[in-house]
Amino acid sequence: MTTFPYEIHATDGAARTGVLKTSRGDIRTPAFMPVGTAATVKALYMDQVRETGADIILGNTYHLMLRPGAERVKRLGGLHKFSTWKGPMLTDSGGFQVWSLSKLRKMTEEGVKFRSHIDGSEHNLTPERSIEIQADLLGADISMQLDECTPFGCSEAEARTSMELSIRWGQRSKAAFGTRDSQALFGIVQGSVFENLRRESAERLIETGYDGYAIGGLAVGEGFEKMCDVLDFTTPHLPSERPRYLMGVGKPIDLVEAVARGVDMFDCVLPTRSGRHGQAWSDHGPINIKRAEFAEDDSPLNPEIDCPASRDYSKAYLHHLFRSGEYLSAMLLSWHNIAYFQHLTARMRAAIAAGEFEAFRREFRGKWEQGQAEAAERAG
Amino acid sequence: MTTFPYEIHATDGAARTGVLKTSRGDIRTPAFMPVGTAATVKALYMDQVRETGADIILGNTYHLMLRPGAERVKRLGGLHKFSTWKGPMLTDSGGFQVWSLSKLRKMTEEGVKFRSHIDGSEHNLTPERSIEIQADLLGADISMQLDECTPFGCSEAEARTSMELSIRWGQRSKAAFGTRDSQALFGIVQGSVFENLRRESAERLIETGYDGYAIGGLAVGEGFEKMCDVLDFTTPHLPSERPRYLMGVGKPIDLVEAVARGVDMFDCVLPTRSGRHGQAWSDHGPINIKRAEFAEDDSPLNPEIDCPASRDYSKAYLHHLFRSGEYLSAMLLSWHNIAYFQHLTARMRAAIAAGEFEAFRREFRGKWEQGQAEAAERAG
Ligand SMILES: [Zn+2]
Ligand SMILES: [Zn+2]
Repeated sequence: MTTFPYEIHATDGAARTGVLKTSRGDIRTPAFMPVGTAATVKALYMDQVRETGADIILGNTYHLMLRPGAERVKRLGGLHKFSTWKGPMLTDSGGFQVWSLSKLRKMTEEGVKFRSHIDGSEHNLTPERSIEIQADLLGADISMQLDECTPFGCSEAEARTSMELSIRWGQRSKAAFGTRDSQALFGIVQGSVFENLRRESAERLIETGYDGYAIGGLAVGEGFEKMCDVLDFTTPHLPSERPRYLMGVGKPIDLVEAVARGVDMFDCVLPTRSGRHGQAWSDHGPINIKRAEFAEDDSPLNPEIDCPASRDYSKAYLHHLFRSGEYLSAMLLSWHNIAYFQHLTARMRAAIAAGEFEAFRREFRGKWEQGQAEAAERAG
Repeated sequence: MTTFPYEIHATDGAARTGVLKTSRGDIRTPAFMPVGTAATVKALYMDQVRETGADIILGNTYHLMLRPGAERVKRLGGLHKFSTWKGPMLTDSGGFQVWSLSKLRKMTEEGVKFRSHIDGSEHNLTPERSIEIQADLLGADISMQLDECTPFGCSEAEARTSMELSIRWGQRSKAAFGTRDSQALFGIVQGSVFENLRRESAERLIETGYDGYAIGGLAVGEGFEKMCDVLDFTTPHLPSERPRYLMGVGKPIDLVEAVARGVDMFDCVLPTRSGRHGQAWSDHGPINIKRAEFAEDDSPLNPEIDCPASRDYSKAYLHHLFRSGEYLSAMLLSWHNIAYFQHLTARMRAAIAAGEFEAFRREFRGKWEQGQAEAAERAG
């Protein structure tokens, strides 16, 4: 079960940096995966995504199975050819978005029946169908087991029932996946905020055996401190020699703190979603470009980032574009944000390699907290 | 008054090809100017615009004076620096958009008072203020005189009154413009569909003397045949040694037929507007990418055009993007359309230079009419 070798080049405390080697190219870790929901990273060209330093992107099984349809993508040559993204691609199982977007869900041991939020059509997602879509039809380099995302706030008993269902779905996912030469399958740790459940989930996943281990059911409302707590007691139970992926996270500070706890991979819609809403990310937090103070600010967002969107356009221009409702506003801010997140992971990789991660983390937290204080002052 | 030399390299019938030499670079004619309304060609990066072969873009005085404001653009270093477009730029006078977009217009001999369609603020546009905005504040390479766009369907008497006002506003525009080393001023022929008025307008503009001559008040509802008629009796009265610019036109067939009648320059929002609405232009007319037949069409829009948007993406992918409401749909279709229009002008320049324009025109008309017939068949 080690299709993709994972070479860890350096560690610093619990933080690690290395390379996950796939047949479509290397993934440098810590890695941030831009989200390409509908076969496009919103408002970016794939060349731009690649040039920001992204080694891998994520595709959403739920969206793609509904539109254009997984069989159609297969007939068109698979998701890489269809979307023009040539590097490695990870797909989620579809479970999370069935849970958050679809209508009239019906969950059984077998899987989940639901109606499309687009046209109301009925669909059936089982562990086997999810693997067929991801690995066979879309052609993902990394597939995720189908799991149930346990909602935050549930009881321990509910969390156990849900976690155990995910374990069984994982086993069925693995059986359907079988053994493959150039594709990998990741399992997903569930268990909500309960230490014993997270540990048990991790142990049972390891018994099954996966190419990588994701941590699911976080960033669903539990808050920053609780998320850190869960990571504190979860990552130690995951095999150190395989990649660890924190799903759906997150803000820059979340990435830094999760890397400090041994996480290797992330994905989040935040950079592109914020970009469409006029926010530019920085070490001090998000900048709302529509604020009046930027109307005649000639400086770029961040000249230290080697990306045209960060370096070659004035805040005054971005402010104007956003206020004018221009496409280029979302295009440039999303591009900057993806570049910022890649720059952040690159800085973390360098800091870990240099044995200076704790200093980086301390300095980063300082800037972040200063930004939070300034934002509070502006708001107050 | 010949700030920018205009070298005509070849003629073929009334069609001409040459180079208008500006201090910011050469404009190869026939030239199509993409419209950069609010300091951005919608959904494109300026580098892309340039790489399609566009030598010059157009900026809208009306939009820019309202947002971000002409004085603000000046403080930020002018429109070239603000927008990052380094080549020549032409601005319109603002008159046409006051007429079509603003509220509560009040026209007098002095100029036009109006309220912004954005925030209701009151503004005053006179020939002198228009030149100040275009030439001094925005820093346009080519400024346009303020004129009144005579609506189609007016009487000859109304058209005369309007044309004569435009002549006087032109004289005031020129007086305000004065003599400049590296900026040019174009006059605008009006006179609606009346031959004697168009001739008189042209003659009086020539008396005043401009760096180039635009034909205004067309593509406002008169239809293709009438537009061709007006060009037939107007361009012969314009000086052959200066550029002729047909404002706000148009469809590919309009460009071909206007070039056949001696027009050198064009602008139109059509390629970018169509791109946002899911249309891709071709010699056969517009392709509606959302049509079901494209859902699994693996072919690109036009592999003969040296533009990634035309060459490297399947119609199936573009169909999916449009149906999914993705930014990338507008981005790619607008980019293809601008590239298509530039490719069309490049083909016309080559045909004229080779003395084969009539053959090109005949072949083009054949494809266009075939496309029209096919569209009618689909619709019927
Ligand atoms: Zn997220
Ligand atoms: Zn037009």
